[in-house]
Amino acid sequence: MSNDYDVIVIGGGISGLCAAKLLFEAGLNVVVLEARDRVGGRTHTIRNKEVQYIDVGGEYVGPTQNRILRVAKELGVQTYKVDVTQRSILYSKGKTYAFHGDYPPTWNPFVILDYNNLWRTIDKWGEEIPVDAPWKAPHAEEWDHMSMKDFIEQVCWTRTVKWFAVLYVTVAITAEPEKVSALWFIWFTKLCGGTERMFSVTNGGQERKFVGGAGQISEKLMECLRGRVMLGRPVISLDQSGDEVIVETLNHEIYKGKYVISAVPPTLIAKIHFKPELPAIRNQLIQRLPMGSVIKCMMFYKEAFWRKMDYCAAIYFEEDDAPVEITLEDVKHDGSAPGIMGFILASRATTLARLSKEERKKRICEYYAKALGTEEALHPVHYEEKNWCEDQYSGGCYASYFPPGIMTVYGRVIRQPVGKLYFAGTETATHWNGYMEGAVQAGERAAREVMCQMDLISESEIWLLEPESVDVPSMPIERTFSERILPSAQGFAKFLTFFAFAAAFGFTAYKKGIIILLPGKP
Amino acid sequence: MSNDYDVIVIGGGISGLCAAKLLFEAGLNVVVLEARDRVGGRTHTIRNKEVQYIDVGGEYVGPTQNRILRVAKELGVQTYKVDVTQRSILYSKGKTYAFHGDYPPTWNPFVILDYNNLWRTIDKWGEEIPVDAPWKAPHAEEWDHMSMKDFIEQVCWTRTVKWFAVLYVTVAITAEPEKVSALWFIWFTKLCGGTERMFSVTNGGQERKFVGGAGQISEKLMECLRGRVMLGRPVISLDQSGDEVIVETLNHEIYKGKYVISAVPPTLIAKIHFKPELPAIRNQLIQRLPMGSVIKCMMFYKEAFWRKMDYCAAIYFEEDDAPVEITLEDVKHDGSAPGIMGFILASRATTLARLSKEERKKRICEYYAKALGTEEALHPVHYEEKNWCEDQYSGGCYASYFPPGIMTVYGRVIRQPVGKLYFAGTETATHWNGYMEGAVQAGERAAREVMCQMDLISESEIWLLEPESVDVPSMPIERTFSERILPSAQGFAKFLTFFAFAAAFGFTAYKKGIIILLPGKP
Repeated sequence: MSNDYDVIVIGGGISGLCAAKLLFEAGLNVVVLEARDRVGGRTHTIRNKEVQYIDVGGEYVGPTQNRILRVAKELGVQTYKVDVTQRSILYSKGKTYAFHGDYPPTWNPFVILDYNNLWRTIDKWGEEIPVDAPWKAPHAEEWDHMSMKDFIEQVCWTRTVKWFAVLYVTVAITAEPEKVSALWFIWFTKLCGGTERMFSVTNGGQERKFVGGAGQISEKLMECLRGRVMLGRPVISLDQSGDEVIVETLNHEIYKGKYVISAVPPTLIAKIHFKPELPAIRNQLIQRLPMGSVIKCMMFYKEAFWRKMDYCAAIYFEEDDAPVEITLEDVKHDGSAPGIMGFILASRATTLARLSKEERKKRICEYYAKALGTEEALHPVHYEEKNWCEDQYSGGCYASYFPPGIMTVYGRVIRQPVGKLYFAGTETATHWNGYMEGAVQAGERAAREVMCQMDLISESEIWLLEPESVDVPSMPIERTFSERILPSAQGFAKFLTFFAFAAAFGFTAYKKGIIILLPGKP
Repeated sequence: MSNDYDVIVIGGGISGLCAAKLLFEAGLNVVVLEARDRVGGRTHTIRNKEVQYIDVGGEYVGPTQNRILRVAKELGVQTYKVDVTQRSILYSKGKTYAFHGDYPPTWNPFVILDYNNLWRTIDKWGEEIPVDAPWKAPHAEEWDHMSMKDFIEQVCWTRTVKWFAVLYVTVAITAEPEKVSALWFIWFTKLCGGTERMFSVTNGGQERKFVGGAGQISEKLMECLRGRVMLGRPVISLDQSGDEVIVETLNHEIYKGKYVISAVPPTLIAKIHFKPELPAIRNQLIQRLPMGSVIKCMMFYKEAFWRKMDYCAAIYFEEDDAPVEITLEDVKHDGSAPGIMGFILASRATTLARLSKEERKKRICEYYAKALGTEEALHPVHYEEKNWCEDQYSGGCYASYFPPGIMTVYGRVIRQPVGKLYFAGTETATHWNGYMEGAVQAGERAAREVMCQMDLISESEIWLLEPESVDVPSMPIERTFSERILPSAQGFAKFLTFFAFAAAFGFTAYKKGIIILLPGKP
């Protein structure tokens, strides 16, 4: 095999491998250059006797994510449901509140209205943002210059909902609301099918996991590519000054290609020395899309002791000192190797990285014991963790975020080819951007862009709709009539205030007579 | 010469070259690896017959910048003053307002108070920020979570001062106020000696330029290093897994060193593949410190026609469509090659980069003609520009900025060595950070850190004070008694409102008698 290729794909995560598979199946000569000694990128299944297998990276899939479900099915990887039939927990200020469902319940009508208004506003704003060009939204400038912190301050009224909104954003994108653009986050949410689809377990983004782990997807894609994936090949330079694109790897290998697809996060492009230089806008874009911050922590126990207490081990922590902010049960499809998965998120991931692994484990167990109300949580049989922030060839997890003011100035070039260099990677997706689903969509789209350039397909074949998965159908999510017409908490408070004043005035007037202003004498 | 060195310096800008010179003079075996085919980094003097010489990068120096003045003097490079004796211009909404000094004057007492309160507040907040550890300021958390946009909204009251504050920040750091942390910006200003020292021409950061151009500093430093500067050597990898540090360049050369000093902007470290990986906090820091955005534009004319009209060609543009927001005269010390230097700043640099050079030139001339009120401005004899955003080995100009929330989480590692890798570069300075002065301070400090590690000097000799330049002495900047005690515009307005109400009430009471409330009957 010579080192002359039709297409060179940089990055052997799901996106790059899906791009390569499509090109390979179209009969093109393709090679995938992967920096690490494994494929999978931000998905990674590790195996050992204590855990059998565990996903230390991307793990969850759900309805409407039809592309990744199609790819998995084709590769013979099955899904199973995350079990949340038992009670979830909100652990707040030293107390445990148990509840059913994804959201902590409340009896306070102001909080109910405030929640309703929050979700409704995010989804409503999302309606006017074009999925493929958020910078063209009618309010793009205004919303992009607003951080999600500004948005939350503006829209939420009660302390409870403000707290939950901050958690919601932080869990969704592994960065604090103040750091991200409202335009970007609301667009991001829209690409997931809205607030409820994104955040839910059942009928949402966290409904299922892969039997055997998500890492299998990339491992099996690599098998399909029959030796065309080269591991341990970090790309150091990309030269487009001649007819062919010349790509060099850290181990001094030269690959020549008619086209190149980059399937790494936007900021990791910075690891490549370009000739000629990238256009100014991309040269600066790649400094402006940081990766989120997360340490994924898996605590394994002899048995799923929480189930005896009617808990599903989904916990929200509302505690400044809690290392982990959100958990889900992590149990195999056959019930074996039971554990609890927790996320250390955003700047906590940076500050808690200073502790030893043992110390993190101890602190996490202490909080699990407090929330679950049992000392059994203090005695795990095994602990696995993965700090994605230290990973040179991921840069962080789950994905890139757009700080305020970046989308409207730089966003339009996110998928724009640079000469013969095309862009895949979940950050360039227009469906479940940042997820495995987005990785597949972006990879296949970039492959078809190249095939279109090669006159193998027409332009109308680049962007394809995906039929719904037969095995994982989606239930519709619709706002009820009352959810649509209920007032906001502020609106309700104003109404109540007006009503109370009017009533008080009427009552006073009836009981005490009328207040008269005596004019001054002329 | 073997490829074994005591110290390898990455980056041949002023910082790296100053570090190397100190080490070389101490008898150490040093090499500087520079990616480009020239030294100077973000300073660059180009020469041609039309301009003689011109600085397309860093250019200005002033009093208190004693280190760069010392280095220049030692190298035989002299300074001369920027001439601002004639009138400056504010061009606002189609009208030209001429004035003397650095700040547009006003007769509105609210604007005067508002300006005074703005400068006073920035400098006062700065007093409590430690120069070497801004993350330890008593209000660090609060101020770091505030953008400069938030700060301006909170502190400024009048439209005029809000506009000027935005311009002030944008000119100072080539990024919009919304993009940067208030903690960082106020600390940055403090390192320049405060608001007035930073922004002023006379007695401030823009007082002088170098005769022959700032690029000479690096060129002459390279001469001092006698062949130890290697051009065209982008560093692709840095391996600290053995006893020696192994550095490889894009042209496959291997350099071995006992120590390495990085003298490139923090984000450009990302171009290097590290073994072992960088610590998590630095791996993420380098994604979070984008470079500012600027196109520096120099328009040359047959003569300095503005001088005939008693203008010094310093212009502020308050116009949404003006490409350039601020200008200064650019004339050689002997009066030859007269021109006007203008900055296209922040996101304008990105949007206006889409135009052709000719189109930019035309638009700039049109606005110069409007502001100066003469068609002579439409007929330049030559135009030079430099878009730093497209420069792969600068990433942007003038320097890195800290977005909100980054300083308190990541800032403490900015100068923290990683094994045998030490950090220079103006972004690591504690004096005129981001300027040539900061580059010298950081370079020399990093060199002395390494010398201390080698037991050549003691720890107390790492950070040295610099005696004041004899040739460029500083005049003290002090707030007058009235500047210190005057109320803010808001305070004054409240006082006036109270006074007006009290007077009106007194007058009414005197003229009309007293208003009586009649109680309702029981």
